[in-house]
Amino acid sequence: MIENKKFGIIGGDLRQYYLSQSLFSDGNHISVYGLDKIPKKMDNFEKLSLNDVIKISDYIIFPLPFTRDGKTLNAPFTENEININTQFLDLLNGKKVFMGMIIPLISEYVKTHKASIYDYYREDFIISNALLTAEGAIKIFFENSLKSINKSNCLVIGYGRIGKFLCEILKNLGANVTASARNLQDKAIIQSKGYNFINTNELTNSKNLQFFDVLFNTVPQVIVGSDILKKLSKDVIIIDLASIPGGVDKKSAAELNIKLFHELGIPGKHFPKSAGEIIKKTIYEIIKEENI
Amino acid sequence: MIENKKFGIIGGDLRQYYLSQSLFSDGNHISVYGLDKIPKKMDNFEKLSLNDVIKISDYIIFPLPFTRDGKTLNAPFTENEININTQFLDLLNGKKVFMGMIIPLISEYVKTHKASIYDYYREDFIISNALLTAEGAIKIFFENSLKSINKSNCLVIGYGRIGKFLCEILKNLGANVTASARNLQDKAIIQSKGYNFINTNELTNSKNLQFFDVLFNTVPQVIVGSDILKKLSKDVIIIDLASIPGGVDKKSAAELNIKLFHELGIPGKHFPKSAGEIIKKTIYEIIKEENI
Amino acid sequence: MIENKKFGIIGGDLRQYYLSQSLFSDGNHISVYGLDKIPKKMDNFEKLSLNDVIKISDYIIFPLPFTRDGKTLNAPFTENEININTQFLDLLNGKKVFMGMIIPLISEYVKTHKASIYDYYREDFIISNALLTAEGAIKIFFENSLKSINKSNCLVIGYGRIGKFLCEILKNLGANVTASARNLQDKAIIQSKGYNFINTNELTNSKNLQFFDVLFNTVPQVIVGSDILKKLSKDVIIIDLASIPGGVDKKSAAELNIKLFHELGIPGKHFPKSAGEIIKKTIYEIIKEENI
Amino acid sequence: MIENKKFGIIGGDLRQYYLSQSLFSDGNHISVYGLDKIPKKMDNFEKLSLNDVIKISDYIIFPLPFTRDGKTLNAPFTENEININTQFLDLLNGKKVFMGMIIPLISEYVKTHKASIYDYYREDFIISNALLTAEGAIKIFFENSLKSINKSNCLVIGYGRIGKFLCEILKNLGANVTASARNLQDKAIIQSKGYNFINTNELTNSKNLQFFDVLFNTVPQVIVGSDILKKLSKDVIIIDLASIPGGVDKKSAAELNIKLFHELGIPGKHFPKSAGEIIKKTIYEIIKEENI
Repeated sequence: MIENKKFGIIGGDLRQYYLSQSLFSDGNHISVYGLDKIPKKMDNFEKLSLNDVIKISDYIIFPLPFTRDGKTLNAPFTENEININTQFLDLLNGKKVFMGMIIPLISEYVKTHKASIYDYYREDFIISNALLTAEGAIKIFFENSLKSINKSNCLVIGYGRIGKFLCEILKNLGANVTASARNLQDKAIIQSKGYNFINTNELTNSKNLQFFDVLFNTVPQVIVGSDILKKLSKDVIIIDLASIPGGVDKKSAAELNIKLFHELGIPGKHFPKSAGEIIKKTIYEIIKEENI
Repeated sequence: MIENKKFGIIGGDLRQYYLSQSLFSDGNHISVYGLDKIPKKMDNFEKLSLNDVIKISDYIIFPLPFTRDGKTLNAPFTENEININTQFLDLLNGKKVFMGMIIPLISEYVKTHKASIYDYYREDFIISNALLTAEGAIKIFFENSLKSINKSNCLVIGYGRIGKFLCEILKNLGANVTASARNLQDKAIIQSKGYNFINTNELTNSKNLQFFDVLFNTVPQVIVGSDILKKLSKDVIIIDLASIPGGVDKKSAAELNIKLFHELGIPGKHFPKSAGEIIKKTIYEIIKEENI
Repeated sequence: MIENKKFGIIGGDLRQYYLSQSLFSDGNHISVYGLDKIPKKMDNFEKLSLNDVIKISDYIIFPLPFTRDGKTLNAPFTENEININTQFLDLLNGKKVFMGMIIPLISEYVKTHKASIYDYYREDFIISNALLTAEGAIKIFFENSLKSINKSNCLVIGYGRIGKFLCEILKNLGANVTASARNLQDKAIIQSKGYNFINTNELTNSKNLQFFDVLFNTVPQVIVGSDILKKLSKDVIIIDLASIPGGVDKKSAAELNIKLFHELGIPGKHFPKSAGEIIKKTIYEIIKEENI
Repeated sequence: MIENKKFGIIGGDLRQYYLSQSLFSDGNHISVYGLDKIPKKMDNFEKLSLNDVIKISDYIIFPLPFTRDGKTLNAPFTENEININTQFLDLLNGKKVFMGMIIPLISEYVKTHKASIYDYYREDFIISNALLTAEGAIKIFFENSLKSINKSNCLVIGYGRIGKFLCEILKNLGANVTASARNLQDKAIIQSKGYNFINTNELTNSKNLQFFDVLFNTVPQVIVGSDILKKLSKDVIIIDLASIPGGVDKKSAAELNIKLFHELGIPGKHFPKSAGEIIKKTIYEIIKEENI
């Protein structure tokens, strides 16, 4: 735990709000900029100008992602556009700065200037985030299903970080789990866990497609095309967790009247408090590791 | 599986609708009475008079519970009140009848008349229902929480059927689980499962009350009074699953502004399709066991 | 934890030895009687006469069971027979005494004399013991099998304390688990856990008998007779955990050359250290509860 | 399943015997060479000369590993040394051959000749083998411990295939699991599973070393040196699963009188039947995939 430090929080969404609350609870001072329209009490935080937040803080935390358009800070809760330009970057000179997903522009700048910039979107954060995403997928299922997960037939496409967590949760909840993957090693692990296996490349030909109550996709590549969609039960729910363009042919799904939910940024939307918590945890770890 | 039989469905709620669909899918004929206001397509079912449903059916299925007031059939989806009187009971003479929670009036009648009445609200049904209730509790949590279950601190009061399932689900989802019970055997089982234990009688004095993110009650007796409520975190969520009056002092909870959800009939409300399915499964079992 | 007390250990087996070691590690003084042939270093304990052990101790601990023949103390590691008679019982007058499985003779005596006798063979102990027994069953399997538990077909007869733990362990190790029980409630729980179910009464007719790699019995009643034995695979291993007479027709099993292991007192034989630990834990609990 | 084929089994150990039995049970013809000293009934197999086994078989199966010395076939159950030379390899011309761990000599030969050689020591086999190894580690623990796994403190060094399975099994059996690894991603996964984490590089400084009841090593590099060994409990059991030289300083362990078990080839030694089964499964898969 870090305490008695000054943290500056700039931009971001509800996650940054809960991150701030949690840092505050640990006994830190919080100043904020770019969160003015967050519909929450901000009494515990000092609202300052961009310059002042940066100036007075020991550690400055930017959101995840740092920017969505490559030009301005990701700051949906303010009217003030914050341009990522040399003038802005100069403010960070000599400071300890955290952000999620550093862009090349910043990396370049850092090489020639005295800013210490740390990316908290690293492997341990990504794993924790994947776990929140998997749990969020269950939440989305619950919001849209008339059936319980127990005894339901679930297909999870892709056996990466999110797929692994999702299969385990579903199995633990008593579902009949089928996982699809493409390589031999995943096949062996999938079978050793007691899940059914389908080769992702042979999904189209699977005779079991009609029996699935829910299909979770984690592969960011259109795998679920009209050929597969046509073979699914009319009551199926598809929850697509893959980044754009997702893994489902949206047009065909709409034509076939199939319930499709393509949600991104699940941790921040569904569990903002936990999402803020894992940002904090990762930043604390970095501070400890780097001894800064 | 039972097929090619005539089932008569009388009264009840969405569960009976999905029960009917499922019986129909298995290849049975379905006639219905008392479901006219269900907002669903009823094309697969024959709508008949009460007398005719009873007359033509091999098996007649009444809802769970059979009656809520002891006088009329539990039939919320019709304007027609169906009185449970001798005239009504006489219709059942010589028929095979299923209902949930038989009332003494019926038991008495059966002793002297030729109706074969089976209660599907029996142990195996109750266990399956408890599992749905536990999963529904997770759903209610998700609808009201900003945190994931993973890493959250959960207290489950009571270690009966629902409490057992709930603890297991929470643990599997990565929660830090505390279960409360009153006897030594439960204590030993709770500890063997890796949960923390609190004696229900000593809840008031627990120093951990402030750390719980969520509290699930399963004991139908007011255990969570103002003394406990005052020690809980202001962000706690209480989900009360116990039958009336529930286990929480509602007035104190309201005064303290604590989020309290007291929900009954969770399987039917949240997973009507699964709830219909377990009614069907139990009735099929009874038909097989009794060879009727 | 209890410390700085004098414990007297009288009779018993390796469990009492490890119990003594563990009490000693916590900072207690240990005197012993009736363990002279235990093949272990006894340096940490004071060896005294029966009278002296009783006289100097704050707490006296007898073994589990207290007696096997109803007449003499259960003390296999001494040549000295200790008769349970009035003279012996008089020594206990005014003392705090623990034993496992109090016999009526003692209960009677206690009513009219000033001994405080506590039975540590109570529900919480029994549960912990059942867990050790289930783990011991796995050990016995390993000692006698050429196959792993993973992917093996296991039948567990009886779904009481030991049966429940055993099914869970086997399932967790990746076995295909079938549990047999007799009542509806157990059936529903068994199925909800993802195990296969067989009605114990219908075992004889099960078509799956030939496929089991191992059969664990927990019911103290001969259920596995020659009719069942004949249908088992010739490579099957039977591990009988039920108290005498066990649940297997031993003669038929021998004639059919079936590998049968009937072991009792598994915790003490296979995990004496853990078995001593749970005796200690239970006694500590009693001391705390009774405030003695 | 493959049936009605001729399989030739040449060399190897008990695994090949059980592999042969299993192939035979599926309805295949088995001829063998180089298993003459196996202490088992061989009635179901035809014993032929090396030439004849190769000549008559549809599929020829060599052991895992194919050779231990790079010069002769791995065939411990025969006095006849089978040299891996051009003459021997010429016999395989035009045949479908399976072996575990193909050596370069063979790969070279295959390039210029008409033998179809398949290595069954591939990812799916390795995963299944790792699972058997993890279960075998539990078996070795049981053979040498006075404590149950439940409630014991276990350290698993290395979080690769075997480490992952081992942690999961130990956790499921109720152990308190600590896993050591070196990278951030493993740390995050380890923590998400509810295990304790230690950085392998910081093992020496861990304050918890004295509390471990058992230490499993999976890293083939001497990590557990005298500095660590000295801090362990005198009752600790070390089970080293890593290939030669293992991960433990054997000399120091002996000097400190620490129980150390360094076992290799666990699946074949402890679960030869299951080990034979996974060879068969992999070969069947290859036959299907390659359509041979």
